[in-house]
Amino acid sequence: MVIKGFQFSAVEAAIKKAGRKDLALIYSEVPATAAAVFTTSAVKAAPVLVSSEHIAGGFAQALIVNSGNANACTGEPGMTVARETSHLVAGALGIDTTAVQVCSTGVIGVQMPMERIRTSIPALVDGLTSGTLDDIAQAIMTTDTFPKMEASGGQAGGVSYTVAGIAKGAGMIMPNMATMLSFIITDAAVEPTFLQQTFRRAVGTSFNAITVDGDMSTNDTCLIMANGMSGNPTITEGSPEGNAFAANLNDVLLSLAKQIVKDGEGATKFVEIRVSGAKNDTDAKRAAMAIANSSLVKTAFFGQDANWGRIFAAVGYSGAEVDQSLLSLHFDDVCMARNGIFAGEDAEARGSEVLKQKEFAVSVGLGIGSGTATVYTSDLTHEYISINADYRS
Amino acid sequence: MVIKGFQFSAVEAAIKKAGRKDLALIYSEVPATAAAVFTTSAVKAAPVLVSSEHIAGGFAQALIVNSGNANACTGEPGMTVARETSHLVAGALGIDTTAVQVCSTGVIGVQMPMERIRTSIPALVDGLTSGTLDDIAQAIMTTDTFPKMEASGGQAGGVSYTVAGIAKGAGMIMPNMATMLSFIITDAAVEPTFLQQTFRRAVGTSFNAITVDGDMSTNDTCLIMANGMSGNPTITEGSPEGNAFAANLNDVLLSLAKQIVKDGEGATKFVEIRVSGAKNDTDAKRAAMAIANSSLVKTAFFGQDANWGRIFAAVGYSGAEVDQSLLSLHFDDVCMARNGIFAGEDAEARGSEVLKQKEFAVSVGLGIGSGTATVYTSDLTHEYISINADYRS
Repeated sequence: MVIKGFQFSAVEAAIKKAGRKDLALIYSEVPATAAAVFTTSAVKAAPVLVSSEHIAGGFAQALIVNSGNANACTGEPGMTVARETSHLVAGALGIDTTAVQVCSTGVIGVQMPMERIRTSIPALVDGLTSGTLDDIAQAIMTTDTFPKMEASGGQAGGVSYTVAGIAKGAGMIMPNMATMLSFIITDAAVEPTFLQQTFRRAVGTSFNAITVDGDMSTNDTCLIMANGMSGNPTITEGSPEGNAFAANLNDVLLSLAKQIVKDGEGATKFVEIRVSGAKNDTDAKRAAMAIANSSLVKTAFFGQDANWGRIFAAVGYSGAEVDQSLLSLHFDDVCMARNGIFAGEDAEARGSEVLKQKEFAVSVGLGIGSGTATVYTSDLTHEYISINADYRS
Repeated sequence: MVIKGFQFSAVEAAIKKAGRKDLALIYSEVPATAAAVFTTSAVKAAPVLVSSEHIAGGFAQALIVNSGNANACTGEPGMTVARETSHLVAGALGIDTTAVQVCSTGVIGVQMPMERIRTSIPALVDGLTSGTLDDIAQAIMTTDTFPKMEASGGQAGGVSYTVAGIAKGAGMIMPNMATMLSFIITDAAVEPTFLQQTFRRAVGTSFNAITVDGDMSTNDTCLIMANGMSGNPTITEGSPEGNAFAANLNDVLLSLAKQIVKDGEGATKFVEIRVSGAKNDTDAKRAAMAIANSSLVKTAFFGQDANWGRIFAAVGYSGAEVDQSLLSLHFDDVCMARNGIFAGEDAEARGSEVLKQKEFAVSVGLGIGSGTATVYTSDLTHEYISINADYRS
């Protein structure tokens, strides 16, 4: 896979512990059109604050990211670390400081060992000649059990381009933003406003449509860089090329988002929650998210228990407009309930079979309007408890 | 303990399974002034719909309650069951149907075996001569591991009265309403409007200030009956007797609410979350509830891990107005963070000691205004998963 004009590097900086690469760099040989979506939490990590300042101009050329320490709840010292990091990278690469994005993921509230970053940057920059995007996907993992990558290719004006992305995140997953970190790079030339809008839309139906545990992070960042090095005529909105690019981008983001849910901490099930017939799309998403975040629903998934009443209970408190006599529910194509009541004993047995699968869909009809939403979630398991009861040890 | 003019009975109706008393009756010898708070879910169980109709007149004389089946998501057949149940009880006791409150708790979505209720009501009414409030507390248990009771006594006009209450609920606990079921009875004579208002206020700071798993039930009901049989002069608002009654009521409700959290499914910790310095009380409660419902915070409690950053992360996404540089955090009297950053290594060790206790307080200061809130929560444990992954089996 070639994404023209991008270089990659990862080194072991031993930020939290030794033995793995935990500091990574993505570099574009030319300034790239860029857009980002950050956590909406009121408690933002220092790198989020610095990166959102830097991206205000709509471009970026480098991204430095570390795992092992979130640099969140670290006050002014944390801000100094994030600023110095971007400054050092800019100096080593000979680019503007504002062209550098800084991202961090890991434990919250611990000061970053700046010295280890400072001394690692020369080797990080030297490594750019030989690294791959896969190295970056590996380096940003925390409790992830596998690296998350996806790519899609297209053509514009007879010129081929690639859209590639990586992501990390397995816990503290909930919109908005859902992923802790995701970086998308493309060698396509894309009109800046169109890039920003189509990226935000794609984030809305991917990373903002997944939940593992309902906890939003202080560090969530989703970034795209389009450097135009494939040499295609600039892709614009409303054109066939624009539509194709948007579709490619959607594919990459949705694949990455689903990978995050499949790697949800302790997850044994991947569940697609579809809500239709809501008053509007907002209500549909409320209902879908209430189901997706319900501990009782998620433990029932884990137990492979067709306890459909818990799903209606979640819809009931979601805040969506509901007429309980109109509710319907399917597990895959098995009707579990219609008109608000149980579809019968046969449904119980058949619904239980659906829940034994590793992946299935839960479809709820509200019967009121035409609002729809789809979100993705995992089950809640013993392993989730084990991972999070001693994440730091 | 004597609560004058109240009688109690419980029988085995084998609604879900045999071997325990699962149908209970509370009867006041005279019509009682009554008030109730029901689930705010849009998916309401049939007994909630029927009871809220019946209590509109402000009085009640009997309460029939079953465990094992929630009679929720049961449609018209469920409504017929709830109506027939109240009708049969009224007939057997010779009172108005609207004087009967009906409550159910248990599995959702299964039709109630009406025949078992119908045939059990004569024995239930016959048993009133010999039952106790404790029998009722036992009969309403589902996944509860202990019955929940509290009583408090007072005087008005030189006449002693008692306020006694029972509750059940261990999962699906979240305001509003928090408890699945709680029944308060008093032999005091209380002015109806004052009773209603003081009861609602007490519910707000007790049952609506607890959370176990963030799931609100379809059946939540909190009911008070005041039958005046102690013979005291009617207690009114603004009087010393009124204030004393309100305090007694608060004590009983708060004790019951705390018992529910302590019996939270799989809980090993009881945690008081106090938020102060918020823009207003609403913001304070938002922040407190976000902490209390965070799976990551609750698993950290279980792991006895002083992972304070997760608490600030929860405050950050709570929706409360937050300036992260002003945040402070204490575990009991140990300062974990101030001005948004870690208070130091010593705090880590001392904070971990606090978390080893079975009960402790988490206090967050927002440093913005004078809004405060206190909520109560439990940890999230392996046992919670075990209980809920196979609750129905």
